[in-house]
Amino acid sequence: MQIGMIGLGRMGGNMARRLTKGGHQCVVFDRNRENVNALAKEGPAPAYSLEELVEKLSAPRALWIMLPSGAPTEETVAALSKPLESGDAIIDGGNSYYVDDIRRAKELASKGIHYVDVGTSGGIWGLERGYCMMIGGERDVIQQLDPIFATLAPGIGSIPRTPGREKLGGTAEQGYLHCGLNGAGHFVKMVHNGIEYGLMAGYAEGLGVLKSANAGAWQREADAETTPSRDPEHYQHDLNLADIVEVYHGCWI
Amino acid sequence: MQIGMIGLGRMGGNMARRLTKGGHQCVVFDRNRENVNALAKEGPAPAYSLEELVEKLSAPRALWIMLPSGAPTEETVAALSKPLESGDAIIDGGNSYYVDDIRRAKELASKGIHYVDVGTSGGIWGLERGYCMMIGGERDVIQQLDPIFATLAPGIGSIPRTPGREKLGGTAEQGYLHCGLNGAGHFVKMVHNGIEYGLMAGYAEGLGVLKSANAGAWQREADAETTPSRDPEHYQHDLNLADIVEVYHGCWI
Amino acid sequence: MQIGMIGLGRMGGNMARRLTKGGHQCVVFDRNRENVNALAKEGPAPAYSLEELVEKLSAPRALWIMLPSGAPTEETVAALSKPLESGDAIIDGGNSYYVDDIRRAKELASKGIHYVDVGTSGGIWGLERGYCMMIGGERDVIQQLDPIFATLAPGIGSIPRTPGREKLGGTAEQGYLHCGLNGAGHFVKMVHNGIEYGLMAGYAEGLGVLKSANAGAWQREADAETTPSRDPEHYQHDLNLADIVEVYHGCWI
Amino acid sequence: MQIGMIGLGRMGGNMARRLTKGGHQCVVFDRNRENVNALAKEGPAPAYSLEELVEKLSAPRALWIMLPSGAPTEETVAALSKPLESGDAIIDGGNSYYVDDIRRAKELASKGIHYVDVGTSGGIWGLERGYCMMIGGERDVIQQLDPIFATLAPGIGSIPRTPGREKLGGTAEQGYLHCGLNGAGHFVKMVHNGIEYGLMAGYAEGLGVLKSANAGAWQREADAETTPSRDPEHYQHDLNLADIVEVYHGCWI
Repeated sequence: MQIGMIGLGRMGGNMARRLTKGGHQCVVFDRNRENVNALAKEGPAPAYSLEELVEKLSAPRALWIMLPSGAPTEETVAALSKPLESGDAIIDGGNSYYVDDIRRAKELASKGIHYVDVGTSGGIWGLERGYCMMIGGERDVIQQLDPIFATLAPGIGSIPRTPGREKLGGTAEQGYLHCGLNGAGHFVKMVHNGIEYGLMAGYAEGLGVLKSANAGAWQREADAETTPSRDPEHYQHDLNLADIVEVYHGCWI
Repeated sequence: MQIGMIGLGRMGGNMARRLTKGGHQCVVFDRNRENVNALAKEGPAPAYSLEELVEKLSAPRALWIMLPSGAPTEETVAALSKPLESGDAIIDGGNSYYVDDIRRAKELASKGIHYVDVGTSGGIWGLERGYCMMIGGERDVIQQLDPIFATLAPGIGSIPRTPGREKLGGTAEQGYLHCGLNGAGHFVKMVHNGIEYGLMAGYAEGLGVLKSANAGAWQREADAETTPSRDPEHYQHDLNLADIVEVYHGCWI
Repeated sequence: MQIGMIGLGRMGGNMARRLTKGGHQCVVFDRNRENVNALAKEGPAPAYSLEELVEKLSAPRALWIMLPSGAPTEETVAALSKPLESGDAIIDGGNSYYVDDIRRAKELASKGIHYVDVGTSGGIWGLERGYCMMIGGERDVIQQLDPIFATLAPGIGSIPRTPGREKLGGTAEQGYLHCGLNGAGHFVKMVHNGIEYGLMAGYAEGLGVLKSANAGAWQREADAETTPSRDPEHYQHDLNLADIVEVYHGCWI
Repeated sequence: MQIGMIGLGRMGGNMARRLTKGGHQCVVFDRNRENVNALAKEGPAPAYSLEELVEKLSAPRALWIMLPSGAPTEETVAALSKPLESGDAIIDGGNSYYVDDIRRAKELASKGIHYVDVGTSGGIWGLERGYCMMIGGERDVIQQLDPIFATLAPGIGSIPRTPGREKLGGTAEQGYLHCGLNGAGHFVKMVHNGIEYGLMAGYAEGLGVLKSANAGAWQREADAETTPSRDPEHYQHDLNLADIVEVYHGCWI
């Protein structure tokens, strides 16, 4: 299907490439003309303004914003709300705060414009491996966009199947999910990131213990303010953290 | 090579099976005669006492203890120290506290008996997938036991290779590692478990947030002791946690 | 000086009493007429509506709101904004979110009405001991209200003087402080509460350790899932927590 | 009563002074002769070796060790065990690990020597204000030492009485407590310190928030990696932390 991509940075550019490879017709815009020209050589149609982008798409239009959160995304949503028509859809694939999604969806609804919030995971490896997507918005709008999500996602088979999953159906196994109402996509992605940082803290704390496992060999004087180590002979391990992480990695898969 | 396995529970039984499949000659003992008889039908030679087990092995012997930590393992190490001879090796593959390893290794060294501590990961899936092992003890003893570790481990190819790993060499990529002196194996496994529980806490906290994402719809009266929710409209999400975890899983691989 | 008190619950009623004792002229209002009548017997002038309260005060008026945060306070500020005149001041002594203070101050400023946010600490002991107050708003408005704050506060001498404090001057030693712009009062009180809950968590965790100091005497079987206590003889203490807290209390004063 | 004090540093020296003022007969020892001579001028009898100290005391003797924990205390307990006789008592007023107390008490019991562990709080202010003590050991031994503890402690009246305390009796209100068996004194003091550090962490975290309450005024560019502050106008407070801590202090007393 046809889609407009706004923002051709590390994420947006590769997403347009993956969509083009998947047979979709992309029209691409970036405030930097060179980014537009470079990508246009690979197939997508170029647009040099938001107005031109809107004009080159047939109604009902789908426009995917892939910009830094905050002002850039906010201003682009506002700018698009003017030329777009009832039935068109704005998809915010960036890292917007989900509360902004709820507000924007409400504002755009008064003009009949649909809003879809997509928490997108994948980073610079996404072109090859695909992007995981957590999606919030109206069910029928998201179903119309399904070919786009299916192409961007990794698809079944990219990881070992969770036992029993085949009976549950749905798109989660393909790497994307309609989570709920507007805001639900970025909410679920926000929690995803929170868990991720918690995991990194867990790894860091454990590796810190390993790194200090030779503390018994450190030279330190006992005084009135410092408790001497009771069992320095228990902390004499000089460990190879890179090798240990490799073994841990094998344990947890 | 030849090895004696003590303790034929969920872990030890399957390890003896995997070793037998791998061409090793196992002699197996369990305080429960039925466990010994059942396993003997699959190839390993049976032993009905520690003394018989020791007799059926040729020096220098290797005996792998796979028992609950604490008294069962402690008493077995003590019982083995009598019939064993200089040059034999006791391997504790259970979850002993690494401080006990340091003490036992020192005590057994006075008799010339080697001690090897192995933190073993794999659970009930280990028979098929292999066991990750974190190993502490003397270098040359562990090198002699390498065929055992190589057979128990998952081996290269069981997970995608870490980029650059092929240049580093060593056994970590196969899923086992000689971490350092006595105690280092169980120390590294202990930290592994600590990290693992930290990760589970991270997942739990995040999923807890998702589960309460519909708190704005809960009925609650404001009073002098309870702050009313300022923005109940932001917490109206009824989320499908099973689907979300499936998508998260795809994101993190 | 003259002041109107709105809300005669556990806090507001006693504050009016302390102000009356301190020689101030209070006019008091509560949505419950009986609370008004009861307090009027002790000196303050009664008012049975916000309008009557405003009428009974001479301009420039000072009105102290002491209501549950959220809707009750919000609606009262809104209701007062109509009869009040330029130069009057609304003081919110409750637990409002400081962000609401910033908004209200801005809204009222357009009518020339001043807004002062006061984080009030003291609870039901305040009548006798005085109330600590953390204050946000315009400097000159707060200076005009200083007689009110000075009477409500505990005053110098209620606790041992911090060494060197006498050289610093200011009102902090008397138990109240103009912290900064609008919102600063409730912000500083919010952090005060956060610290307080952190302290309580610290006490609770420590007392939990004391309570379980006899865990070595508990009956528990070792199994594959439960690590047995290595040193049960170290955890045989049956402690009297009430006595210990009394001793701790003496340590920390 | 008569008591020997070993270690005349910041703590031990002042404790000997407070005991002397309280009418007790102190014999004092320190490995530094000058410390002994200096204190002897204020009343206590000097001793220049542990042997001399023991000789100058009448049986049953009481010897209070006030040394750094670890080796200094351990070696002194060992050295004293030779000249002391059955019925004598060693009191460790330092910061020993309570597990060492349990071991030492057991070892000394075989010779009939009593051991008392005392967690002592008070620091350099103790001379004037008194020392809080958490005590572990045999009940009758501790009762014989009660005059010593009563003199060292702050006593009733040094802080406001806890309501209802007068009905409970016991010594906790005077600032010392027989907590339980050997080890209980240092165990309860250890938890006291743990709580104290938790409280300090709570204060630090809260003050950190106050210190950054002007973060909205910091200059920072938004980019793809940094979420811009949504509400910089809410973080414009330049707060005087010293004044705020003074007010907090008044709130919590």
